[in-house]
This record gives sequence, C-alpha cells and structure tokens, in this order.
Amino acid sequence: MSDSAVTRLRRQIEFIAECDKLKEIFRQTQNTQSRRAENDAEHSWHLCLCVIVLAEHANAPHVDILRVLKMVIVHDLVEIDAGDTFGYDTAGQVDQHARECVAADRIFGLLPTDQARDFRALWDEFEAQQTPEAKFALAVDRFQPVLLNCRTDGGGWKRHGVTQDRILARNSKIADGSTAVWQEVEQMIQAVVDRGHLAAGPAGKPA
Amino acid sequence: MSDSAVTRLRRQIEFIAECDKLKEIFRQTQNTQSRRAENDAEHSWHLCLCVIVLAEHANAPHVDILRVLKMVIVHDLVEIDAGDTFGYDTAGQVDQHARECVAADRIFGLLPTDQARDFRALWDEFEAQQTPEAKFALAVDRFQPVLLNCRTDGGGWKRHGVTQDRILARNSKIADGSTAVWQEVEQMIQAVVDRGHLAAGPAGKPA
Repeated sequence: MSDSAVTRLRRQIEFIAECDKLKEIFRQTQNTQSRRAENDAEHSWHLCLCVIVLAEHANAPHVDILRVLKMVIVHDLVEIDAGDTFGYDTAGQVDQHARECVAADRIFGLLPTDQARDFRALWDEFEAQQTPEAKFALAVDRFQPVLLNCRTDGGGWKRHGVTQDRILARNSKIADGSTAVWQEVEQMIQAVVDRGHLAAGPAGKPA
Repeated sequence: MSDSAVTRLRRQIEFIAECDKLKEIFRQTQNTQSRRAENDAEHSWHLCLCVIVLAEHANAPHVDILRVLKMVIVHDLVEIDAGDTFGYDTAGQVDQHARECVAADRIFGLLPTDQARDFRALWDEFEAQQTPEAKFALAVDRFQPVLLNCRTDGGGWKRHGVTQDRILARNSKIADGSTAVWQEVEQMIQAVVDRGHLAAGPAGKPA
C-alpha cells in the first residue's frame, strides 16, 4: 500500500478503537437474563438483529436495508461524548441534540474526510426522520427497549415511575416505520399493565 | 394483520427476545476502557462497525456488504447454547462445529421456516469460508479481537500465555479477506511484542 493508503487505514482503525467506548455507555433498560443495565453497543447490535428479522414489516415497500443497518450501527456513537439521555428525561432532552451535534463533529471527524461526511450524513438522516429508512430505524430503536422492558416486568419504566400513557405517547412513533410492529407493541405494553407492573397514567389523560 | 401474520410476527419477536442471551456470553478479549470481558453482542456490533469502515479494503472488488453485515450480526448466535470457544483452545475446537450445529438447529429454528432457512444459510456460508463475503466477515472477526488485545497490553493472549507465532498463525486468515488489513495487523502484533507484553514463541518455530 502507498503511504497515504496506510495513513488512511490507520485513521480508520483509530476510529474503530475509539468507538470501543460505546460499550461503557449504559442505558436505563435492563437485559432480560442478568437484569444488569444494557450498554449502547449491545443495544446497537440488538437493533441490527431487529432490522434483518423485521424488515418485511416496514411500512414503505422498498426500504434500503443496508442503509438502515448503517444507521443503527452508528446512531448512538454520539453518546460516547454526550452520554445516554433517558427517553423520559424531558429536562435532559432540552439540549440533547445540541450536545450530540458537538459529539458528532468530534467522533465522525476522526474518520478520513469522505467517510466522516458519509457517516455524519447517516446520523443526520436518522435524526431528521424524513426518509423511510430513518423511520424504520427509529421504529426498531423504540421497539427494542419496549421488548426488554416488557420482558423485565417493566424494568426501567417501573424504576422511573413512567406510566402507560407516557410510554404509548413516546413509542407511537413506531407506527411511522411499521404499523404492524406498533400494533403488537400496544398489546405488549397493555399486558405489562394488566400484570400490575405499570400504572395506566393520570386519570383524564389519554392512555 | 391476518392471524397468520400476527403469529409470524410473534415468532420473530420471540427469536429476538431469545437472542438477548448473546449479551451474557463472555469472551476472552477485554474491552479497552473498563478492561472487563467483552460479550458476544458487543463484539458483534463492533464487527458491524468494522465492516462498514473497512469495506474498501476487502480483497474482492464487489463484496456484498449487506450480506457481510447479516453474517456478522448472526455469526455468534450459536454460542448462546454452545458457549464461546477461545481461539487458542485446541481441545475445545475438536467438537466446536458439531456443538454449534446443534445450537444452530435450535436457535435459527425459532424463526418462521423461510427465515430460519435464510439465517442458517448465512451461518453456513460464514462457516464454509468459500465466498468473498464470508472471507471478509472472517477477516473482521479476527481483526477486532487483535485490535482489543493490542490495546490492552496483550489482554487475553497474555493471560493465556499465547505466543506471537500462534497469534500470527491463527490470524493469517485475515489475509484471505483483506491483505491490507493483514499487513497492518502484523505490525500491530509486532509492536505488542516489542513493548514486552508477548513472547515471540518457541525457538526454531516460524514467528
């Protein structure tokens, strides 16, 4: 290889080594077996699996599954710097996007320029939620924690006192990517409420 | 959705929930930050990242990256039942493939029949190592633990007394998928030896 090709490869390897830090960013969801907190790397892999298993349930007829996979592989890398913001932490969400943009500049900026631009574009596409690929990626990103919470008696929801009405409001975005998955998710959440692990929510508010 | 479509989706969700167990299968490699043992889910995500970052370095000119990604996403699922076999555990490797085939039957068999067949075919393709996609997937599957071991002063190699000659012999398969990555890996391993963390190996044996 030429010197510049070696330099390029070494820069790519530094990026891959830096991203090892994603394994230490812990989430509010618990894994079903050990019940320890899930980390972002495990979560990102589980999303990849969801994408290839559930692809047929995407609303859009011709979703580019390769682009969806690339999106879910990189979607949480910004949390290496910005940390995980719990989905029901409304205070933390105020400046979440701003914090994550700074992180995206630094982390994707470790790559060679052309790849830095491509990876940043994937993250921007996910954040903007305009394409069928971004919508399906978000659908699995919301579905997977619902699955873990439902399989751990309410898990992170219960610990934080999150009620059914808020869970449904937050996760209804799943329907933008897959109405089939959303219909099933509504039933999964209801079953956790019926088993007594979650409260329905304040009276008078839509459930 | 029809009853049969709902049944199909529920079967897919059961498979995704079962695969959560991959997060509890621990490997001999250590993550670079916490130095705790890496698990298979984290490893599989890190491979996905390697695939999309290093794709240009594949030997074959037209590697199907989507198939490579699918392969690395599912390649370790058999370890949910068969456990992780350390790459330098020659005793454990004797019946490794047989144990993993039984696991593949059960785990992929949780999926609807057509998907069970497709996922099993991906795993079989990876194991057979005949296609450019399988060779590139194996190259990243060998490269990633080398990277972690090199960034943790020899990590799992050192703990098990694995010498440079054995490390080079095992990992030379990387060259079948990417000669560029293999050339860099040889230098990475040499640097760990030069820093005094690894022994070169028995005198008289090729290093």
